[in-house]
Amino acid sequence: MTNPTAAMLVIGDEILSGRTRDANMHFLAGELTKHGIDLREVRIVSDDHEMIVEAVTALAGAYDTVFTSGGIGPTHDDITADCIAAAFGRAIDVRDDARALLQAHYDNSGLELNTARLRMARIPDGAALIDNPVSVAPGFTVENVHVMAGVPSVFQAMVASVLPTLTGGAPLLSQSLRIMRGEGDIAGPLRLLAEEFADLSIGSYPFQKDGVFGANVVIRGSDGARVDAAMTRLAEVFA
Amino acid sequence: MTNPTAAMLVIGDEILSGRTRDANMHFLAGELTKHGIDLREVRIVSDDHEMIVEAVTALAGAYDTVFTSGGIGPTHDDITADCIAAAFGRAIDVRDDARALLQAHYDNSGLELNTARLRMARIPDGAALIDNPVSVAPGFTVENVHVMAGVPSVFQAMVASVLPTLTGGAPLLSQSLRIMRGEGDIAGPLRLLAEEFADLSIGSYPFQKDGVFGANVVIRGSDGARVDAAMTRLAEVFA
Repeated sequence: MTNPTAAMLVIGDEILSGRTRDANMHFLAGELTKHGIDLREVRIVSDDHEMIVEAVTALAGAYDTVFTSGGIGPTHDDITADCIAAAFGRAIDVRDDARALLQAHYDNSGLELNTARLRMARIPDGAALIDNPVSVAPGFTVENVHVMAGVPSVFQAMVASVLPTLTGGAPLLSQSLRIMRGEGDIAGPLRLLAEEFADLSIGSYPFQKDGVFGANVVIRGSDGARVDAAMTRLAEVFA
Repeated sequence: MTNPTAAMLVIGDEILSGRTRDANMHFLAGELTKHGIDLREVRIVSDDHEMIVEAVTALAGAYDTVFTSGGIGPTHDDITADCIAAAFGRAIDVRDDARALLQAHYDNSGLELNTARLRMARIPDGAALIDNPVSVAPGFTVENVHVMAGVPSVFQAMVASVLPTLTGGAPLLSQSLRIMRGEGDIAGPLRLLAEEFADLSIGSYPFQKDGVFGANVVIRGSDGARVDAAMTRLAEVFA
């Protein structure tokens, strides 16, 4: 049995320019792994209508679930909601339920629900809202695409709302061993181990520290006993 | 005049599983921005032959330059070189010049150039080698694709080898202003500013700190005088 698959689309000029370093992808990757969903692909594109539509269409067709982050705020560069509507051929407008959420929130805080803020109530037809306990403006789900905010605290809260609604698989278990030898020395035995434990994923991640080369060997699988067995063998081989 | 475009392909099971957080993408993004090359898209895929071939083919066709990171070491999960050869329909085998580099290095260090290490001399036909001053095993360039190691110190050294060979554009200049008001308050004036300075890119990156919402507004462009003018106006509007 294979696990459900997922992809992520990060809409992020600020990441592509090197201004900020991604945090949402790293967070989502960890959550999905725990939930038994395989994150297979991530794409990062800029705030460009055509590129977002193309990426959403490709990913939604190829994977069970897609998560997007970024571009659903009130400013002129927030174009994600319109792109998602376009990708699915749906109309988009201010929706009453989303407007009511915002209205109540801004009434409460004594702020005006102005034209800019009302943009955050633009929801594609037929989408389900995703709860935003941090700053109220909702994300939304269209078919298999979950559209979420880019601000990390909001993104994380939305992931927490969405994840329980998804069918997970067997959580991926992993164990790792740090080996202070160059990859070239361990590659031969490692290949034999990978052939013997073909049901597991065995990865080697080299590093360099103070001029010395080493590798973290990571064994992943959903059957804990098999992972244990492979790790025992690995430790014997490189004892 | 528009700047040359670039994309990056990260081959990284360890990033997709949430085990490690990307460093190479963030580094490359900053270097390209300084060099006047627009990083337009990043894809992260797992160590899967078909996915790597598909991504390389798509990106190499869509952008001026493509950089890949990861998967060129000596272990069984290092399949990038073969995927690049497949993507460009080229043969691949151990090449004499790459083998000579490795032979000299391992002779020097008293290590054996074994079968696993010799895999790192597998280079697609007609590729140019990329110098690796850190650990010798070379990267390579096929047409507009630069294939580099995943270990950050090696990746960075290879970027330093490749960048001077690329034609850059006007470096992207940016200035930013931190505004301690919710995006909903600044969105209206910001849209007018973006319309007035349509030759610049004006982005708003919201954050939340101690329960207070604010935004970093970033103005980017290659004409310093225009960026200055827009920043002056921005400061006046939100004074």
